[in-house]
Amino acid sequence: MSKTIAKLGRRLRLGVIGGGPGSFIGPVHRAAARLDDNYEIVASVLSSDPDRSRREGQAIGVAPDRAYGTATELFDGEKAREDGIDVVAIMTPNDSHYPLCLQALENGLDIICDKPLTTNLRDANDLVHRVRDAGVVFCQTFNYSGFPLVRQAMAMVRDGDLGDVRMIEVEYVQGHNAALTATESGEESNWHFDPARVGESLILGDIGSHAHHLARFVTCQDLSRLTADITSVVPGRTAHDYAGILFRLENNAPGVMWVTQAGAGAVHGLYFRVFCAKGSLEWAQETPNQLTCSRIGEPATIYERDGPGLKPEAARATRVGIGHPEGYQEAFAVLYADAAEAIVARKLGEKPDRLALDFPTVEDGARTMQFIAAALESSHSGGWIDYQVAF
Amino acid sequence: MSKTIAKLGRRLRLGVIGGGPGSFIGPVHRAAARLDDNYEIVASVLSSDPDRSRREGQAIGVAPDRAYGTATELFDGEKAREDGIDVVAIMTPNDSHYPLCLQALENGLDIICDKPLTTNLRDANDLVHRVRDAGVVFCQTFNYSGFPLVRQAMAMVRDGDLGDVRMIEVEYVQGHNAALTATESGEESNWHFDPARVGESLILGDIGSHAHHLARFVTCQDLSRLTADITSVVPGRTAHDYAGILFRLENNAPGVMWVTQAGAGAVHGLYFRVFCAKGSLEWAQETPNQLTCSRIGEPATIYERDGPGLKPEAARATRVGIGHPEGYQEAFAVLYADAAEAIVARKLGEKPDRLALDFPTVEDGARTMQFIAAALESSHSGGWIDYQVAF
Amino acid sequence: MSKTIAKLGRRLRLGVIGGGPGSFIGPVHRAAARLDDNYEIVASVLSSDPDRSRREGQAIGVAPDRAYGTATELFDGEKAREDGIDVVAIMTPNDSHYPLCLQALENGLDIICDKPLTTNLRDANDLVHRVRDAGVVFCQTFNYSGFPLVRQAMAMVRDGDLGDVRMIEVEYVQGHNAALTATESGEESNWHFDPARVGESLILGDIGSHAHHLARFVTCQDLSRLTADITSVVPGRTAHDYAGILFRLENNAPGVMWVTQAGAGAVHGLYFRVFCAKGSLEWAQETPNQLTCSRIGEPATIYERDGPGLKPEAARATRVGIGHPEGYQEAFAVLYADAAEAIVARKLGEKPDRLALDFPTVEDGARTMQFIAAALESSHSGGWIDYQVAF
Amino acid sequence: MSKTIAKLGRRLRLGVIGGGPGSFIGPVHRAAARLDDNYEIVASVLSSDPDRSRREGQAIGVAPDRAYGTATELFDGEKAREDGIDVVAIMTPNDSHYPLCLQALENGLDIICDKPLTTNLRDANDLVHRVRDAGVVFCQTFNYSGFPLVRQAMAMVRDGDLGDVRMIEVEYVQGHNAALTATESGEESNWHFDPARVGESLILGDIGSHAHHLARFVTCQDLSRLTADITSVVPGRTAHDYAGILFRLENNAPGVMWVTQAGAGAVHGLYFRVFCAKGSLEWAQETPNQLTCSRIGEPATIYERDGPGLKPEAARATRVGIGHPEGYQEAFAVLYADAAEAIVARKLGEKPDRLALDFPTVEDGARTMQFIAAALESSHSGGWIDYQVAF
Repeated sequence: MSKTIAKLGRRLRLGVIGGGPGSFIGPVHRAAARLDDNYEIVASVLSSDPDRSRREGQAIGVAPDRAYGTATELFDGEKAREDGIDVVAIMTPNDSHYPLCLQALENGLDIICDKPLTTNLRDANDLVHRVRDAGVVFCQTFNYSGFPLVRQAMAMVRDGDLGDVRMIEVEYVQGHNAALTATESGEESNWHFDPARVGESLILGDIGSHAHHLARFVTCQDLSRLTADITSVVPGRTAHDYAGILFRLENNAPGVMWVTQAGAGAVHGLYFRVFCAKGSLEWAQETPNQLTCSRIGEPATIYERDGPGLKPEAARATRVGIGHPEGYQEAFAVLYADAAEAIVARKLGEKPDRLALDFPTVEDGARTMQFIAAALESSHSGGWIDYQVAF
Repeated sequence: MSKTIAKLGRRLRLGVIGGGPGSFIGPVHRAAARLDDNYEIVASVLSSDPDRSRREGQAIGVAPDRAYGTATELFDGEKAREDGIDVVAIMTPNDSHYPLCLQALENGLDIICDKPLTTNLRDANDLVHRVRDAGVVFCQTFNYSGFPLVRQAMAMVRDGDLGDVRMIEVEYVQGHNAALTATESGEESNWHFDPARVGESLILGDIGSHAHHLARFVTCQDLSRLTADITSVVPGRTAHDYAGILFRLENNAPGVMWVTQAGAGAVHGLYFRVFCAKGSLEWAQETPNQLTCSRIGEPATIYERDGPGLKPEAARATRVGIGHPEGYQEAFAVLYADAAEAIVARKLGEKPDRLALDFPTVEDGARTMQFIAAALESSHSGGWIDYQVAF
Repeated sequence: MSKTIAKLGRRLRLGVIGGGPGSFIGPVHRAAARLDDNYEIVASVLSSDPDRSRREGQAIGVAPDRAYGTATELFDGEKAREDGIDVVAIMTPNDSHYPLCLQALENGLDIICDKPLTTNLRDANDLVHRVRDAGVVFCQTFNYSGFPLVRQAMAMVRDGDLGDVRMIEVEYVQGHNAALTATESGEESNWHFDPARVGESLILGDIGSHAHHLARFVTCQDLSRLTADITSVVPGRTAHDYAGILFRLENNAPGVMWVTQAGAGAVHGLYFRVFCAKGSLEWAQETPNQLTCSRIGEPATIYERDGPGLKPEAARATRVGIGHPEGYQEAFAVLYADAAEAIVARKLGEKPDRLALDFPTVEDGARTMQFIAAALESSHSGGWIDYQVAF
Repeated sequence: MSKTIAKLGRRLRLGVIGGGPGSFIGPVHRAAARLDDNYEIVASVLSSDPDRSRREGQAIGVAPDRAYGTATELFDGEKAREDGIDVVAIMTPNDSHYPLCLQALENGLDIICDKPLTTNLRDANDLVHRVRDAGVVFCQTFNYSGFPLVRQAMAMVRDGDLGDVRMIEVEYVQGHNAALTATESGEESNWHFDPARVGESLILGDIGSHAHHLARFVTCQDLSRLTADITSVVPGRTAHDYAGILFRLENNAPGVMWVTQAGAGAVHGLYFRVFCAKGSLEWAQETPNQLTCSRIGEPATIYERDGPGLKPEAARATRVGIGHPEGYQEAFAVLYADAAEAIVARKLGEKPDRLALDFPTVEDGARTMQFIAAALESSHSGGWIDYQVAF
């Protein structure tokens, strides 16, 4: 139980929707909730099959009466309890995010929701307004922004340590959808390849979303215009598995983004370099405990997690000492920890710690949906798209 | 709650002794216990000051009546309960490990104990026999052996994939005790520098112990003889901060070990390379998700956690997918997960999964104490020491 | 003196034009000529100031009567000698490449010429035809294709070891033109920033040319279409210092190219990854002795220069044994060695070794000029440009 | 032709003894001589078979009358010429170094000699005195000390930038003598495995010599005492292929050295880390263009060859710009360039540039022979050996 939660006197009560057996992301959310001891997982819906959902809920330790069969059961059941959930975590297929968020908002719950926010821009914009109206905490799990050294990069850029942003490169190069042919990969029966479930562009929703958020996060700017080449490189595949995007930031600095899940042999190449007037920052998710900073006229320096020279934003996101690597799970849990602070502050009517407010919100989720819409439009037209980021 | 624990129908009840506020290792143990949801932390002693201990126990979420003031209160209090603890985790200064283990054994508890096992060889040997007599599970947290790719290295060597072991190098090069002088580092008031608390050799107990266990773990052999140079390199320091050791394994293969905590600027250089007849393996704790395997006549290969070519031992120790880095906390939690399997199996009278039995035991702890005694004897005499590893 | 040259019975007589004191590339060309002992540098023009040119020629060891004051003197003087030069190496500012090549062709000389070939596409196309008519050897020093492991990548792709090409990324990210402002960098007085001397686009001629050739070389394909964003990121600068380019190869595989010389703190980030159906290859010029090959379903492998698994193309480009790093100078010299084989074969009326024919030619130079023209057109129009690669 | 040589008005005339076809080191020496254009190779003895020696000499471009059959022919023939050689480079098997050096000294020649200096300590000590008496330049090719960033490390330690030396680690871990058995490796017929040709200890003469020189070079100190474990790890082999050594420097700082040529799969692991009071330096020969400097309380910094922060000693040893890798051949050539400066200065009766005096001399060669003798004595006795380094 963290200090924040100690103020509340109890752990936050969390309900989880989605992430049943076989899911990649379910155990990650739940371990993220447990890691810092800020949450208790007390309610669950783990499958679209109600019986299975109840069974699986109990298997992960949820009490039988709170291992619900459906989301509606969960929202209703919890509303009826004195000790009902404070917050719901949504990790279902993309097309259910919007309706589930609406239900959560109707129940006044704080929300932790996986990305992408929705499957289309209209729903995303709608959610922004509804969340604002409800005044709840909404955490969109663009989890890579929870890495301490990503926070360090953001804070250094924001504070102008290296001068204004001049260029940005973001890559996300995965290989798990590489295959000789679409038939070989068996994607006809995989919901990830169904646009009705994931939105118009698999690659942009799945990982382009992360790359886009990271580009915004570490430049402390939005994109203003772009041109995109979005396609499928595996023969027979219709879902997008590749996107190359040239863009400009608000200050007109150019950027390059390259994302794929069909990079044969690639592991998890999430990577950025941001070039400012006086120096640059480089980070790769596969070695997340280091951030390379190269200043003009000086030898490059390597910032280490928990090492010298870190900003409070980075220090706050760190749990164990320097040289003891932290990873994906810990970064994911940083968002849960941030959200916990914001939720507790809301409950207590207090102002949350400024440093806890770096987690992505519904606006961030919606901005990514704007980016996806613009990228698809450009890829169809072949030209540059100017797009506005206002709600 | 893992599948193992699901068999028991409830989480294991854990009491923790040591690791209060300001401790490095306390939060690590507790998060390790929580990560896989196998344990509930229900009882605690968090300080040698009873009032503080009770206060801090409640602050981490332990119920007031189980946030004990002393270890004896904990052992007595839990014994008296129907729902008393199943297992105790000991993370106090080294000199209390032995008496606390004795108390735990008297109470029939399974034990998770930090390293080094004791402050001298006599107590270590005694514990081996008492644990054997008691038949309880004893997990010594040589936590680096919980990294999936360390398990991979061990299994490859054990299975003879690369032929017999020919040479081994182990380094553990830290810098947190580097200082211009002992006075500057303020070590007079730090219990880590007091031989009465930590044993005769700070460096060997603190990290030589890990290096030694890792050498044994990945070669699947014990050491048979050694010569050592153990000293202090920081002016004015009496506690050892450096050890260089040449040794031979049981099969007469030579080895080099180098450990220090006074390496100015070093981070956490735990590293090994083991050379076999047909190839070699290389691993560094700061990049723990990769293992380099270099076979004669072939390009080197990089095994990735959760990637192709892994042994079941490595796969079992993995939680999230390839390319999503796992780290120190996760490896530590592997030992807790292993111990949970063994403890549940003992409770149910079943045979534990073979793959869960790679965690270090009291014998491993005692073998390290034998190594430390031999190394100190060699450093005093200047010659090689043959030593027996039998209980 | 190499085996090839031994067939001729003497070293090739080389005249050098350009590359005087203070030049970066002059000493590189001359050391490349010397390294394998295939050439003697017997004639020179080292400055546009004739007196200085004569002085500097003697200072590098050229005989007084062949340390010429102007290129015309050199061509005339050498023509008049029995032992006149066999080959001329041109390393002058870009705008003189075309007229000097014309003079060399008139004198029937083989030519080694620095890149870019010319300052415009018309001259480039003209040179292609003239060189073909003359039947001489023409080596365009796209020197990065001389690295052994770049040759390995090319040969693996060409031989289909990894299946068909699916995606390609090429980056060339340098920092030596990063500056707070154009005024600070003093570029008004630097000929590199004068379009009349270097061509319309500094960045594309200087290093985009290398990136483009490398993309073609390792995919064994030409580009078919592209869209480009070319600009200056340093305030006050007019010369281009950034280009982001999306393109398609002839087989429609998409590609991303990103080149800059204004990446603050960047060193020499020439890098490519080529993804094929069954695996990918990754190489960085700053660690040129390794090539990473990642195949689906296998651990990644690291090819080492002079190590196991290399193709004859790579082995041929290697001089010293594995683990003894070779670098930029050696790769540059590979092109000189290749050219020497081709030149000697031409002189002896023999067919050169197939493995010596991987050096870039006038056609490669012209194709880069086509690419530059298309990229500039796209950057002006904002749309995709289809372009033909035929002479 | 370098500036130094320009003072002399001609290139130095070099005779080479050893390094014929099939030799690894012969082409390296000759290219080192050519690289900076300071030397002309005008005389040669390339084989112990006189006919072959003459043939091979001409094949590398030496004039027929100076492509000698034997060393005695060479010394006599060159002595008789007006334009006889200035300097001789000796790269024959170890046991001929001593007699050839004696002949060279009798002829008043400057000497460049491969390592180890001799096959025994007595001859080494004798050579020290004879070279001193003769007053000639003697360069012992401990070539790794020619890498610019090794020079940087030396200069930083010498200048006290990081305070006094506290610990040193040197490794040289090669794999080319790894084999299942000695029979398999066919070493009976390889002169490298014959103690009569190479000296008592293959591993110490071959690469222990380099490791030892590097340890001395970068700590700016000699060793004072050591204990060693020297053995063969390949079954059936009698020649040493492994040495582990613990030592102390003159200031009592401890050190670890580990060298082998039987590390299965290892490439060329020459590596050192030197820890000083305020920070440490780390360098690996396989990535020789970077030097990592880690200072207490600061992020680690990476010095790049030709980059910011370099000492004149490093700058002087550099030829091409930052990010264009240099390697083994270039470092080797640094010693030739240094020697050329010293030789020309001697000829002109001038004082050589201080920065050219970092090349290893006959004293360095002899100190390595002292180290080898002490290491062998320790390995036999099992105890520590104090040894004096005085001539």
